[in-house]
Amino acid sequence: MPPSTHRVSPGTPAVLLLSGGLDSATVLAWATQAGYAVHALSFRYGQRHQLELDRARALAARWNVARHVVCDIDLRQFGGSALTSDAPVPKDRDEAAMADGIPSTYVPARNTIFLSFAMAWAEVLGAQDLLIGVNALDYSGYPDCRPDFIAAFEKLANLATRAGVEGATRLTVHAPLMQMTKREIIALGTSLGVDYGMTTSCYDPDADGAACGRCDACQLRLRGFSQAGVADPARYQAAP
Amino acid sequence: MPPSTHRVSPGTPAVLLLSGGLDSATVLAWATQAGYAVHALSFRYGQRHQLELDRARALAARWNVARHVVCDIDLRQFGGSALTSDAPVPKDRDEAAMADGIPSTYVPARNTIFLSFAMAWAEVLGAQDLLIGVNALDYSGYPDCRPDFIAAFEKLANLATRAGVEGATRLTVHAPLMQMTKREIIALGTSLGVDYGMTTSCYDPDADGAACGRCDACQLRLRGFSQAGVADPARYQAAP
Repeated sequence: MPPSTHRVSPGTPAVLLLSGGLDSATVLAWATQAGYAVHALSFRYGQRHQLELDRARALAARWNVARHVVCDIDLRQFGGSALTSDAPVPKDRDEAAMADGIPSTYVPARNTIFLSFAMAWAEVLGAQDLLIGVNALDYSGYPDCRPDFIAAFEKLANLATRAGVEGATRLTVHAPLMQMTKREIIALGTSLGVDYGMTTSCYDPDADGAACGRCDACQLRLRGFSQAGVADPARYQAAP
Repeated sequence: MPPSTHRVSPGTPAVLLLSGGLDSATVLAWATQAGYAVHALSFRYGQRHQLELDRARALAARWNVARHVVCDIDLRQFGGSALTSDAPVPKDRDEAAMADGIPSTYVPARNTIFLSFAMAWAEVLGAQDLLIGVNALDYSGYPDCRPDFIAAFEKLANLATRAGVEGATRLTVHAPLMQMTKREIIALGTSLGVDYGMTTSCYDPDADGAACGRCDACQLRLRGFSQAGVADPARYQAAP
């Protein structure tokens, strides 16, 4: 879909997964401009740092969402990811290394779990639209960020809910950034007024919230800003 | 699948959704006999009573599961169900009423959320098998208990995880009770040594754990025991 031309009746409810990162902040701005009454959903899931929830709260306030809910779920009890354990986050990987397989920062089932909660809320609200900022170009290679996954979730959602039996509400999962490069995402968000200084992308920020500049997420972000010709307003631990 | 003939290599890990009810207790016995090392997963999701978690713990101990995890997730914050609010549970509905639409006890997205967590655990364990006690014959009409839903979830699971990218582990969702009547389920469980006195089905038990005998779940259960010619060892508030 051409992101800038999507419009809905003002006040149409939608549920947005809001992480506090660059991508979901862009979708938040996009959805607000499109006319949605955004119901933002974030998770305290056992991630290493709370910074992204602080950023999600600030973004939700800035964009006047209809409601922001932070769900507590503990994915640490299953383990399996560098983002929910004390295992080291990979740093300084080159493009070839990043393109090779699924990194240790992958959190098993994370987007499936997040979308399932979004689906629950959407069904209660009577909302037909789920919004997620996944992207399959400049991304970390996670399986649950790919177009096939989103299509399969949408199909599931329409079988799992009242919509599947009563046909009342057909759910659509919008991933407007799916086929965009990081450069294009940053350009879109900038045109919509996103302050990327309010977002965090780093997998391993320090106690003051400064980004490491070296993990995969930082590298993808920095390359995107560089290609977009826009200065990254995020704070870094050292000059990147 | 003919439930009684399914066998796996002893110790094959599997993740089972264990509610403390009649159906999941039967699947627990079935899975144990089949040879699985059962990893049982239950949820404190904001349900009205804790009785089912007590029963799940007792069943997990009785059947010597490899591990039992109780996840805390709060579905009350979304509302939308008589089981996660103070809305009254329907009672004394006849078969025609039960067959007509989705009742107020439906919890939006519940099985999708539960299976998503089971998928997370399975991926970390390297398990290929998810087990769920849903049933589409003598059931409450919930959309997320139907064969199409289970098939769609299995397809999603194989796109959402490492299996989808690396092809390492193909996940299968087993719902061995899907096409069985409650009578058949009770007969199977009885033959496997399930003590149904350890299970709870009631949507509205009293403070002492005695079942109401009048909600849809009690009625389906009582009819099943009656048809199986087996006495229901559950305690009821009044002679049903």
